[in-house]
Amino acid sequence: MIRFLTAGESHGKCLAGILEGMPAGLAVSEAEIAFDLQRRQHGYGRGERMKIEQDRARILSGVRYGMTLGSPIALMIENRDWPNWRGVMNVESVEERRQSTPLTTPRPGHADFAGALKYRHKDIRNVIERSSARETAMRVALGAICRRFFAEIGVTAASHVVSIGTAHAAMDVATTPIEDLNRRADASPVRCLDGAAEQEMITVIDEATTAHDSVGGIFEVIVSGLPAGIGSYAHPDRRLNAILAAALMTIPAIKSVAFGMGAEAARRFGSEVHDRMFAEGDGVRRTSNRSGGIEGGMSTGEPVVMRAAMKPLSTLSQPLETVDLATGKDAVALRERSDVCAVPAASVVAEAVVMLALMNPFLEKTGGDSMTEIQAHLAATPPPSWA
Amino acid sequence: MIRFLTAGESHGKCLAGILEGMPAGLAVSEAEIAFDLQRRQHGYGRGERMKIEQDRARILSGVRYGMTLGSPIALMIENRDWPNWRGVMNVESVEERRQSTPLTTPRPGHADFAGALKYRHKDIRNVIERSSARETAMRVALGAICRRFFAEIGVTAASHVVSIGTAHAAMDVATTPIEDLNRRADASPVRCLDGAAEQEMITVIDEATTAHDSVGGIFEVIVSGLPAGIGSYAHPDRRLNAILAAALMTIPAIKSVAFGMGAEAARRFGSEVHDRMFAEGDGVRRTSNRSGGIEGGMSTGEPVVMRAAMKPLSTLSQPLETVDLATGKDAVALRERSDVCAVPAASVVAEAVVMLALMNPFLEKTGGDSMTEIQAHLAATPPPSWA
Amino acid sequence: MIRFLTAGESHGKCLAGILEGMPAGLAVSEAEIAFDLQRRQHGYGRGERMKIEQDRARILSGVRYGMTLGSPIALMIENRDWPNWRGVMNVESVEERRQSTPLTTPRPGHADFAGALKYRHKDIRNVIERSSARETAMRVALGAICRRFFAEIGVTAASHVVSIGTAHAAMDVATTPIEDLNRRADASPVRCLDGAAEQEMITVIDEATTAHDSVGGIFEVIVSGLPAGIGSYAHPDRRLNAILAAALMTIPAIKSVAFGMGAEAARRFGSEVHDRMFAEGDGVRRTSNRSGGIEGGMSTGEPVVMRAAMKPLSTLSQPLETVDLATGKDAVALRERSDVCAVPAASVVAEAVVMLALMNPFLEKTGGDSMTEIQAHLAATPPPSWA
Amino acid sequence: MIRFLTAGESHGKCLAGILEGMPAGLAVSEAEIAFDLQRRQHGYGRGERMKIEQDRARILSGVRYGMTLGSPIALMIENRDWPNWRGVMNVESVEERRQSTPLTTPRPGHADFAGALKYRHKDIRNVIERSSARETAMRVALGAICRRFFAEIGVTAASHVVSIGTAHAAMDVATTPIEDLNRRADASPVRCLDGAAEQEMITVIDEATTAHDSVGGIFEVIVSGLPAGIGSYAHPDRRLNAILAAALMTIPAIKSVAFGMGAEAARRFGSEVHDRMFAEGDGVRRTSNRSGGIEGGMSTGEPVVMRAAMKPLSTLSQPLETVDLATGKDAVALRERSDVCAVPAASVVAEAVVMLALMNPFLEKTGGDSMTEIQAHLAATPPPSWA
Repeated sequence: MIRFLTAGESHGKCLAGILEGMPAGLAVSEAEIAFDLQRRQHGYGRGERMKIEQDRARILSGVRYGMTLGSPIALMIENRDWPNWRGVMNVESVEERRQSTPLTTPRPGHADFAGALKYRHKDIRNVIERSSARETAMRVALGAICRRFFAEIGVTAASHVVSIGTAHAAMDVATTPIEDLNRRADASPVRCLDGAAEQEMITVIDEATTAHDSVGGIFEVIVSGLPAGIGSYAHPDRRLNAILAAALMTIPAIKSVAFGMGAEAARRFGSEVHDRMFAEGDGVRRTSNRSGGIEGGMSTGEPVVMRAAMKPLSTLSQPLETVDLATGKDAVALRERSDVCAVPAASVVAEAVVMLALMNPFLEKTGGDSMTEIQAHLAATPPPSWA
Repeated sequence: MIRFLTAGESHGKCLAGILEGMPAGLAVSEAEIAFDLQRRQHGYGRGERMKIEQDRARILSGVRYGMTLGSPIALMIENRDWPNWRGVMNVESVEERRQSTPLTTPRPGHADFAGALKYRHKDIRNVIERSSARETAMRVALGAICRRFFAEIGVTAASHVVSIGTAHAAMDVATTPIEDLNRRADASPVRCLDGAAEQEMITVIDEATTAHDSVGGIFEVIVSGLPAGIGSYAHPDRRLNAILAAALMTIPAIKSVAFGMGAEAARRFGSEVHDRMFAEGDGVRRTSNRSGGIEGGMSTGEPVVMRAAMKPLSTLSQPLETVDLATGKDAVALRERSDVCAVPAASVVAEAVVMLALMNPFLEKTGGDSMTEIQAHLAATPPPSWA
Repeated sequence: MIRFLTAGESHGKCLAGILEGMPAGLAVSEAEIAFDLQRRQHGYGRGERMKIEQDRARILSGVRYGMTLGSPIALMIENRDWPNWRGVMNVESVEERRQSTPLTTPRPGHADFAGALKYRHKDIRNVIERSSARETAMRVALGAICRRFFAEIGVTAASHVVSIGTAHAAMDVATTPIEDLNRRADASPVRCLDGAAEQEMITVIDEATTAHDSVGGIFEVIVSGLPAGIGSYAHPDRRLNAILAAALMTIPAIKSVAFGMGAEAARRFGSEVHDRMFAEGDGVRRTSNRSGGIEGGMSTGEPVVMRAAMKPLSTLSQPLETVDLATGKDAVALRERSDVCAVPAASVVAEAVVMLALMNPFLEKTGGDSMTEIQAHLAATPPPSWA
Repeated sequence: MIRFLTAGESHGKCLAGILEGMPAGLAVSEAEIAFDLQRRQHGYGRGERMKIEQDRARILSGVRYGMTLGSPIALMIENRDWPNWRGVMNVESVEERRQSTPLTTPRPGHADFAGALKYRHKDIRNVIERSSARETAMRVALGAICRRFFAEIGVTAASHVVSIGTAHAAMDVATTPIEDLNRRADASPVRCLDGAAEQEMITVIDEATTAHDSVGGIFEVIVSGLPAGIGSYAHPDRRLNAILAAALMTIPAIKSVAFGMGAEAARRFGSEVHDRMFAEGDGVRRTSNRSGGIEGGMSTGEPVVMRAAMKPLSTLSQPLETVDLATGKDAVALRERSDVCAVPAASVVAEAVVMLALMNPFLEKTGGDSMTEIQAHLAATPPPSWA
């Protein structure tokens, strides 16, 4: 079983992460992690920060001669902008007059208000440095290691953007073979597979930029190659859809999550929703995958398909009305460097959180402390011939 | 911190549940638990089973003279139909020829297929007895104890049905005061607050019944009274929306979960989505609650509002095409006693799973081994005056 | 991975337990569970209660036709003395004048004092009903299911009593083959393998009885057949000795736990402590097993040998000085039906807690949702030839 | 609730650690952490490494202007010897001929053998880099943060060495007031409070050094100021002694753990073991603390007193007989830079693991997201007057 923790403030020295429980004998490299980090940094509508970042995760432990040891893997992503923030984010005790001016005007929509109350912070910077989506860079890095794991098993995760604001891709684009999906999505500035919709999405983002506003959207994540029977109905918290929904909901600004047909299934009759089966050779096939590859809290063997809706970012360059927590008087919200639209980036983050979330349900099935064992276990118990 | 486990097959002797970690000194009674169990059994479109059930949970431990002891609380709901199932569900080893005929034709949409593969069962009954939504009766019973806990704190959970099939309630019904909401919803055969929509919903269910089909729908759960700052952004798995989304997704047949505006937020600009704040007296007020009471993974102090979409049930009285796992040949799916529509029941289950899920994030804030301590802790740390 | 919860007061209706996560396809019967429960009830020096108990665990769920389903297994042990306790342990609210007289004089050594403070109980009965060692009966029942699991794998746990008070068995008795060990120990009224020491132990217990006192002792648990490499050094909480020590420490009255040579290893030089290895055929052998079968937080492949020291029970028929918590004045401790010596019973409990504790480290290695898979996984990855 | 993970190989770039869940508003500094790290590095009998190390933990996140933020705290201890190990411990893939020669001769007593089997490593260095006690430096650093937390609450942990080999301190030294205990122990090269025994201990270590051998010993940890009622009997894994025993057992080379009288309690009658209570003023006092401050799995309010026995280190400069895993032939064990005696260092590590282990049972009682809240909660619920 794996566990992970991440740490780090948005403008602190670095992000840190530890991934514990990965099997030994998995080939891992900084270059492959860098590839996913760079995918996360792209996207039309991102702010200036992205150009500064050029994130690179260093592997500090758990890997030797390019192979995992079975020991905890520690990663670090240094903040290249740290010299400019050293004073504001000083770890050491500092006289009050030399501290940066407290932020006291919470942004509606962000963690600012509830976070200040929760931890009794008088300076909202103490909240926003951690609640920032910057934290997801480390999860992308840790997820890249899980992607390597699943690549050995034949499981692939990919994603694409379905809509930004009112601009919506045609539904049938998801028929792209999973192997090509990310390559095609990554080639689009909005990670959209539908060329016409891509142009509309860019227009929507430009509109939001001009209006000093922000805009959200919907993305889809697809996992293919997952065998049937991952997850379980035996206890509620083992249900794979619950595990995956929780994972997607941990990405900042996500407001809804759906599998397969999603809410549309609630409008139809059962005969229009469920995926009929038929025999083909020794196997069982489906006429459709409206379930999104999950039935009864388990993978069905079909691709797992989920969508998440992201609200517009909470930092507007034309800030919203709020209350100054220092004075109790009406005010306008603080401004922090931000993006106009982060939906393409969020789709990449979603791949990572999904892969992290799949590790334990998968390892429950195979067990094993090394890739050798895991591969041998998989080979030793083929599914029944009719599967 | 609480933990719970449930057990029990749909047609076994009983359902059992253990709730560990509840503070001492909470008044709990079988009558109050029975009230929620009875609410779950109602609803237009339920099958014959509901008349048999008349569930009653017996408290086996953890309560003395009507008060919790701080010890684990065990509940049992006996299956009143057990005498008829004694042979089919015998716990003891039995010669094969005296065992019931194996079920081998999985229902599309249900756990049958993946469950048989996962656990290597040749008789699908070994799957469906546990994957059945019958299990949720125990969670309703455990949730009723959490409801008692939150009642002492001033936190209330309620629910209502928003749509069944294409029949949709008008949006503004949710303005019903939370105290009245469940009373009004429970008075409706489909737990709908909108009289006109209620009639349409009944029509949809009748239509499905006539067509030997099933139908799903959408319900909403509202939690009021929760203080700001429950949940956290500090680590991904502490986000309250992730915890609640997972909880709702553990209810069988749920395909999507949304907070506040949900996916609609992805279509709008930020200025149309975020809830502005203004000062009123010593406090901070909001102009709206589009966030559904959650920002930055924490409660905001506004009501928490979530919706879940339920697909139609997978047991159709006109069964779908499938494959016989014993022969590998095309077949029609097994039939099991079932409902045509269970959305009203699911909304009651949702209240329970939400209350169970809120316990630990709430106890992280207050701590305490007894109600006395918890109340004293809450009183000792009022939120800052501007909260 | 398994989880379990137990519930139940000593004189309540019953003990309840749920064991979740056991693989499917394991043969389990009430008779086999009864065998271990009966072993726990034996032992010279037990009180009257044991004759009343004659515990029998009923399987309520998770098993069909004698085989586990992969679903949670619920067990119940009814309290045969319940009719006599119905009034004292009533679950329902009762007028104060009809409640039993509160117990207010805590027994030194027991949970009475700290438990009353912790949960703010005014009646110590609210503490002692759960802190009683009666709870261990359910763990013995759950452990019996794990024993079945390990029997299929070739792993065996056994135990014997090393000392009671100052009466001490000769050290070399542990050379009994593991298959015979429990049979021989169970044949002794004090579960001692050394006939001479057995007689002395009985004398010590008689002495304690006559003096209205109580007496403790030391027992040993041995697990054989466990492959090398269960547990890990990778993160502290994965160390097998930590997991097993915690398990043993959960048995009431245990004050110390040791592996192999235990504290004696602290007196010797390294060359006198570590177990040399030598080649024999394709394998590696040891000249000794002073480590108790654990090195570096992992099983070595040798038998795992642990000892636990149990203090005398805290209920003395000549009660000790204490303070009446109702009056704040000096008093003598309450008396509750109890044993003079429970070391033999504790050794049986220890086998159960050890088997429960071994499940997850073992399943980390094999994975698998059914016995079929687990056996196939074990067969697929033999240890390297030199192991 | 806190969680922590550590990472890092003995000769890798660094040790890393993340501590998640610490409340906000706690004053923390690198200097205070350095103080405990330096205490761990002392001790007669340590090897050369200690002079190289001079460990210093850098705070990478979670702290701003000297105060915790409520966000995860990441620490890093760089390996000052890294330039010399860059080739041997290279993270990147390297041609086999440029890799360091594999180690194949496992040291009896260490993780080498079982670790190589478990993770299927052909080079034992892949095991020993993580199984090394070097890892405990990070736990000392994380524990120093918990020490700061408990200092605010009035809870103190200290330790001293009771024996090294056959040299044993007089028992009554533990009467030193807890405030002075560590100061006095730290002033001794073997952390022993008994001057005469100190001299004998040094002699034993010299003897082991001369004989190219190693030697273990026993240390004691004392926690004072802990209120009654931390831990619980309600579920087995909540017992404080189980939690603390597991924590101590995670320190490499620990073979037994005992509370209060420990195994001696198993030799005595109950009347000689249990700690009588008497009234004094409004409170309850004890005539003794033979229980070691734990009854019924909970703290009693008396000091918690535990002892752990450490076996001699497994690296001998005159190595033991073993088997070469590459050839299957008899061989002598590998040699790695090591200490002759590490008992004084282990006692400092033990303070840290105990403080880490106490955090969650303590936070269960108080709850709270900030020191302000925690202090207010403690003040709001004084124990009953007779406590």
